[in-house]
Formats: sequence, structure tokens, C-alpha cells
Amino acid sequence: MREVAAIGVGITKWGELWEKSFRDIYVETALLALEDAGVDKIDSMYVGSMSSGLFVAQEHIAALLADYLGRASVPSTRVETACASGGVAMKLGYMEVATGVSDVVLVSGIEKMTDVSGNEATYALGTAADQEYEGYHGITFPGLYALIAVAHMEKYGTTREQLAMVAVKNHKNGSKNPVAQFPFEVTVDQVLNSVKIADPLRILDCSPITDGAAAVILCPVEMAKKMQKPIVKIIGAGQATDTIELSQRKDLTWLNAVYLAANGAYKMADKKPEDIDLVEVHDCFTIAEICVTEARGFVEKGKGGEAVEQGLTAIDGKISVNPSGGLKSKGHPVGASGVAQAVEVVKQLRGECGDRQIPDARIGMTQNMGGSGASAVVHIFERE
Amino acid sequence: MREVAAIGVGITKWGELWEKSFRDIYVETALLALEDAGVDKIDSMYVGSMSSGLFVAQEHIAALLADYLGRASVPSTRVETACASGGVAMKLGYMEVATGVSDVVLVSGIEKMTDVSGNEATYALGTAADQEYEGYHGITFPGLYALIAVAHMEKYGTTREQLAMVAVKNHKNGSKNPVAQFPFEVTVDQVLNSVKIADPLRILDCSPITDGAAAVILCPVEMAKKMQKPIVKIIGAGQATDTIELSQRKDLTWLNAVYLAANGAYKMADKKPEDIDLVEVHDCFTIAEICVTEARGFVEKGKGGEAVEQGLTAIDGKISVNPSGGLKSKGHPVGASGVAQAVEVVKQLRGECGDRQIPDARIGMTQNMGGSGASAVVHIFERE
Repeated sequence: MREVAAIGVGITKWGELWEKSFRDIYVETALLALEDAGVDKIDSMYVGSMSSGLFVAQEHIAALLADYLGRASVPSTRVETACASGGVAMKLGYMEVATGVSDVVLVSGIEKMTDVSGNEATYALGTAADQEYEGYHGITFPGLYALIAVAHMEKYGTTREQLAMVAVKNHKNGSKNPVAQFPFEVTVDQVLNSVKIADPLRILDCSPITDGAAAVILCPVEMAKKMQKPIVKIIGAGQATDTIELSQRKDLTWLNAVYLAANGAYKMADKKPEDIDLVEVHDCFTIAEICVTEARGFVEKGKGGEAVEQGLTAIDGKISVNPSGGLKSKGHPVGASGVAQAVEVVKQLRGECGDRQIPDARIGMTQNMGGSGASAVVHIFERE
Repeated sequence: MREVAAIGVGITKWGELWEKSFRDIYVETALLALEDAGVDKIDSMYVGSMSSGLFVAQEHIAALLADYLGRASVPSTRVETACASGGVAMKLGYMEVATGVSDVVLVSGIEKMTDVSGNEATYALGTAADQEYEGYHGITFPGLYALIAVAHMEKYGTTREQLAMVAVKNHKNGSKNPVAQFPFEVTVDQVLNSVKIADPLRILDCSPITDGAAAVILCPVEMAKKMQKPIVKIIGAGQATDTIELSQRKDLTWLNAVYLAANGAYKMADKKPEDIDLVEVHDCFTIAEICVTEARGFVEKGKGGEAVEQGLTAIDGKISVNPSGGLKSKGHPVGASGVAQAVEVVKQLRGECGDRQIPDARIGMTQNMGGSGASAVVHIFERE
């Protein structure tokens, strides 16, 4: 297997981008990544998108986006694993370069979610749950994660305030991220008094509905060195699944797919949880970040709430979690989030994050998941 | 790169399967493939599906199907490239085994298209075209392929009867295929007098709307030999794209992505068009088979109509095209078709096709495409 480097990244301002079309958002983001990488010719493309069919009435986006990027003829594949689509696209691009099938691969993620009504968006997102055994009974994702939150609070004594502190931390980080959809700080009181969505979760516990894309260019490390690019290597990748229905899990609070995917990545990279300087995690809801902190081995089971309260996951803590602002503040265009995590990690490891830069960050991780954790994918990056 | 074998295949009766759910169809098909392969443990799964979101209101099917197959924890990825989704899933499974990332990979394709109305199905299929520049103006796939047919008839003198002969040939083959949706013969007169859909195409020029799945188990040849399985190797794979809009092509009759994908596969396999004994091609419409026959290099440009008229593509012709009955007679559950092509080729190369068996078939090809040819993927298989 060849060593793989991420040599170019691209992301543009996320939000309600009504003035731009799906293909516009993609092309401007991909061009930024190509420019950053200093390459023009690509061998292959992967596009992560959860539901372009339901959000913008367009499937077959892999060919469409290759065409609009001026790259018709290049093999182009869309990947879908709900909100983990971007992360799995990264894994396939990594595999293709590592194994020598291709040299230069453009990996991107995109979702345009605000061209439909809020109800339609909730419906589309609901298709990441088991529609026959969950959706049919009326539950949506805030409800599913609320069940996880209640279970975590009952089992481990996690407090409502600790959930709020996740939002406070991530908005603080996101306030320094120029591409974030909601780049402002919030207080614990504001979270606790925001509109209730699904008890105990309030609106400020939830990631937003977002239009956006992100792109990364991968190539062999050897090629990157010849081009005299800063070297950020992908040194570990892991992917796993869990039961799609939350009700089928032995323990609602334990994200087993995240645990398995992280273990796969640690093993490949020969790293331990304590080796990681920063991690971008899938905080679709505040409780999700707490459960992920545990499943990826940073703290023991049940201690994720305490970790945020003690500041261990703050940008200047023992390990920085979501320095970008996370899904919570940066936004969550579902299929793009996994790729955007890689963009942040690459920029942090290159020291390009300005006010939210983690000093001397050397090893970073991304953790992306779909549904209530039935799909999970983890990558580890290292600066050379 | 390791040599890769297809050691197990599964397919069940296709048609309007109202008595079975999406997950039922998948599980029964995948279990057949596992049984045929004689394996229980799989390392990874790929699922090709074009629009589970619009057809059955369910995204995130990769995790859902891993779970319902009793394989929750296994990495599972859905691939979407419109009607080429199954073929691209095959390519990713092949890459994963060839490169040593995984040993045993379950590749499948599935679409359940008849749980929605005919109008809704037409809408869903239309999302494989450019929705802004094609769909918005009201054109659907029969219309797009009708434009190709008119261009081919004008440019090369292809006749209406030659188009009909594709349907006659494929239905004749399909009449001997127990899993075919429409296992009956048709005559040229019946095709010419069937309901007009988009001039010059009539309903018997069109592939049907189908529920169905297909599955293939891939593993290293070395492992297959140890298991004393009949060896059918994948020796070539190619993928390419073209402009998504038909109007952007220099020549409406030329499927450039098919040409590029086939060339990639020939090159990898070190084979020429005349080396192939049988090919399963993407005959979504009769004209499509004619254009593919040309683009994959079996005959010169413009000679695809003559080839069928002269019987060169008949089951006992120079090269058997669509011995399974093709999309036309076997059915076209869009995301499954590319995998079902591989199932037929493997069965033909193993000599298991009964009344439609091609004597001593040794090298087979599959050609799968999406939209009006903007995505294309080709594989070459060889019996050892």
C-alpha cells in the first residue's frame, strides 16, 4: 500500500445558499481544492451525498458534477451512507490512491437542504432511520437522539447542563470559523432556555439544516513530495455498521459502530486515543458528541459529559474536539460533513486555522456517522 | 494486485413483487449468493441502488441491509450512479479484493420500483437526467433515447425493424430465463404495432419497471482455489463518464463513456472485442443495445442495427449479446441490473444456464450504464 496525502482542500461559506444552485456550490468548492492542491488533472472522483434525490430531485450527481467541473470522462462515483456519506467517500478515495488504482482523486461531499420546506427536509433526513420500524411510528432524529440522551442521563448521571456545554464549546470554536453557518457564541442559559424539540433536547442542542460542500484532493505522498506540498498523510481508516434501529441495541448509549471504526483506524495507524491532538466528531446533537467521546476511547463509558464540563475537550483542553465548530455551529449539509471534517483537520495540521488554530497540532482524527450511528467511519491524519 | 474470483451468485424471480418488502428481496438474494459461495463471513458489502429514497422512501440502505442480513458491524456502502449503480458497486468490490483490503466482499444491487405509481417511477427515473436542463423541459428517458434513435436512423440508415429485432432477440433469450420478468417471445410485428411511447420507440422497445435484486460474492482466486470452487475471474474493469446532457454531445449516437470504460477493461484484461464470447449489455431501450454494440468495438460505428439483423448478436451468433434476455425481457430494477449482468456471465461461464447456455463460453463481458450514457462501467470475466 502506498502512503496517501491530502494535498488540497476546499470549502466555502455554509448556510442557506438560495442564490446558488447545487452544481454551483459543488464546482466552486472543488475548484478551491484543485487550486490549493495545484493540480488540474484528476483520475477519479467520489461524491458523498445523502439524498440529492429528495433534497434537489437529482440523482446521478457523480456524472453531473464531473461534467460541470469540466471533467466529463473521469470515473465518478456517488457514495451514500446517510450522514456518513462524506466520510465513506474519503475512505474510498483513500483506498483508490493507497492501492495504486489512481494517483489523483477528488473526494467531495455535498448537500443542498434548504430548497425544500422544513417538513420535507425532516422527511428526507428521516430516511436515514429505519422507515418501517422507526419512521412509520413517527419518530424523527431529534426523537431518536433524545432517547439516547435520556438513557445516558439515567445510566450515568449526565446532566442537562453538560449537554448544553457541548453546544457552548462548539459555538465558541465556530465563532472563529469564517465558513460556519452560525458563527456566534451561545451560553448555557441560552441553550437551556431555547425551544424544546424532543425532551431533553432543545433547538440549541441540534445541528442545523445547511447547504454546503467540501472537497479534498488525495494523491500518493511521493507525488506530494515532488510537488513540494506540505504533507498531511492519512494513516488510518476504519468503517463499521450497527443495527439501523436504535431499539435493537443492547445499550442505547453505546455507539458500537463508532467503537469498531475507531479501533480499525487506530490499529492501521498504530496509534492510541491519547496520541490524537484534535478530533472532528459528528455532533449532530449535543448528546452525540458525548457518546462519541466515549466510543472512540477518549474517556471511559459514561464520562463524556464530565469531559466537556472539565474542559478536556475544549480547544485548549487535553484533546480539542470540534475546533471547526462542529456540525453544531459550522452547519450540517449531511453528505458534506464528513469531508468538511477532513478539511478542518488538514488545515489544523498545516497551521492555517487563524484564531482557532491548535498550536503545533500533529495528529488529527475525523469521526463521521449516519443515522443514529448505524454507519460510522473514522480517519486518522498525521502531519509529516 | 491479487486475482479476483466471483465465487457465488444469487438472483431471484424479478417482477412486480408486491408481496415482498425491499429488505426481503435483498436478504433472500444475498443468502442465495452466500450459499452458492459456501461462505458465511463477509468482510465488506457494497450495495448498488439508484433511488431507494424516491422509490421506497429509505436512504441509508447499506447499513439497513447489513443489519437485516444479520451482518451488522460489517462495513457497508451504497453506491449510486443511476442505472450503472450495480456495475460500479461491482467495480468497488473488485478493487477492494484485488488490492488486499478485504478478502470476501458481498456486492449487490437492488431496486424496488413498483411500490410507487407509474408517474412517480417516471419522475424518479428522470432524476438520472439533468433535471435543470433536461427534466425541467419535460423530457423523460424514452424521449432521450428516442432522440438517439432518430439520430442513428438518419445518420446510418438504421431501420425501425432493426430496433424491433433487438427486442425479438432479447425476449427469445429471456423466454428461457426462469427469473425474467417477461419470459415470453415477441415478434417484429408485435413490436412495431405496440403502443407508441416516444417516436420512434414503442413500448416493446423499452425495458420495464421492475422489483429485483442480484448479488455476487468476490474473493481472491487463491482462496477460491482452496475452497475448490469453479473459478470465474474478473480480469478487466473500466469506468468513465460523459456529459450528463445529451444535447452537449458532439454525436448523439456515440456513447463515449461506454467506449472509454470498455477500452479501460480491454486494456487491463489484455483482450480485444473479438475475444469476448458473450456480453450482457445495457439495453434499457432497443436503440441502446445498438449503440453499445458499436461503442464497445464489436462492429464499426453505424453497423449496430445490421449486426442484429444479420444475427451476429444472437445467442448462437458471432457474439451472444444479452443471453439472459437483457434489461428488455429479464427486467430492469435499475440499481440491480449491473450486478445481475455479472450473475448471468458467471453462470454462463460455469455452464449453468440450461436452455440458454452458450456452449463452451470462456470469456464474458458486462456493460452497464446510467442515464443516457453519462456513467458507464464495463467488466471482463474469464473462466479458468
